[in-house]
Amino acid sequence: MDAVQAQEILSQMEAKRLAELFKAFSDASRLRIVSTLIAAERNVGEIASMVGISESAVSHHLRGLRQMNLVRPRRDGRLVYYSLEDEHVAELYQVGLDHSLHGN
Amino acid sequence: MDAVQAQEILSQMEAKRLAELFKAFSDASRLRIVSTLIAAERNVGEIASMVGISESAVSHHLRGLRQMNLVRPRRDGRLVYYSLEDEHVAELYQVGLDHSLHGN
Repeated sequence: MDAVQAQEILSQMEAKRLAELFKAFSDASRLRIVSTLIAAERNVGEIASMVGISESAVSHHLRGLRQMNLVRPRRDGRLVYYSLEDEHVAELYQVGLDHSLHGN
Repeated sequence: MDAVQAQEILSQMEAKRLAELFKAFSDASRLRIVSTLIAAERNVGEIASMVGISESAVSHHLRGLRQMNLVRPRRDGRLVYYSLEDEHVAELYQVGLDHSLHGN
């Protein structure tokens, strides 16, 4: 194995971290929640209504997404609005969707 | 829920399919295998040597990646070379890596 090849390989630590990121997207309900946040920020009630699952289920998934820095909260009075953390998150979702719908 | 909102939401079937795609990327060894294929096609022996796992483990992961249309084989005499299925796969890996390394 030469130096060039070695550089190309993801380290075990990087690979583990990246696997955790993809794992955070490996749930259909989470992806449907993410899909509601592509165009706008939403509160838990709005997301629950759009996705058709309970508010407590939405909150559970949002906690997981927050732990992975994929969504961020913004408090507005009594409501908390969630948005995607950055454009990387929307891009990851979109690239995956393109492959999933058209790539195979 | 208005029509615009409804359009934004991923259907359950689309979400399930997309979740399977991300799940295929949710394993550190698989991601290290994918990382060896970013720059060039490789055979099983080369991948095993680069990643530092057995050829049978590499073959197992390649089967999983093939089932998800993420890699494709090319036979050359007695050897089979693997490459990423299309540029979407490399893009998905790269966007995830950018977020994983710098985004949080």
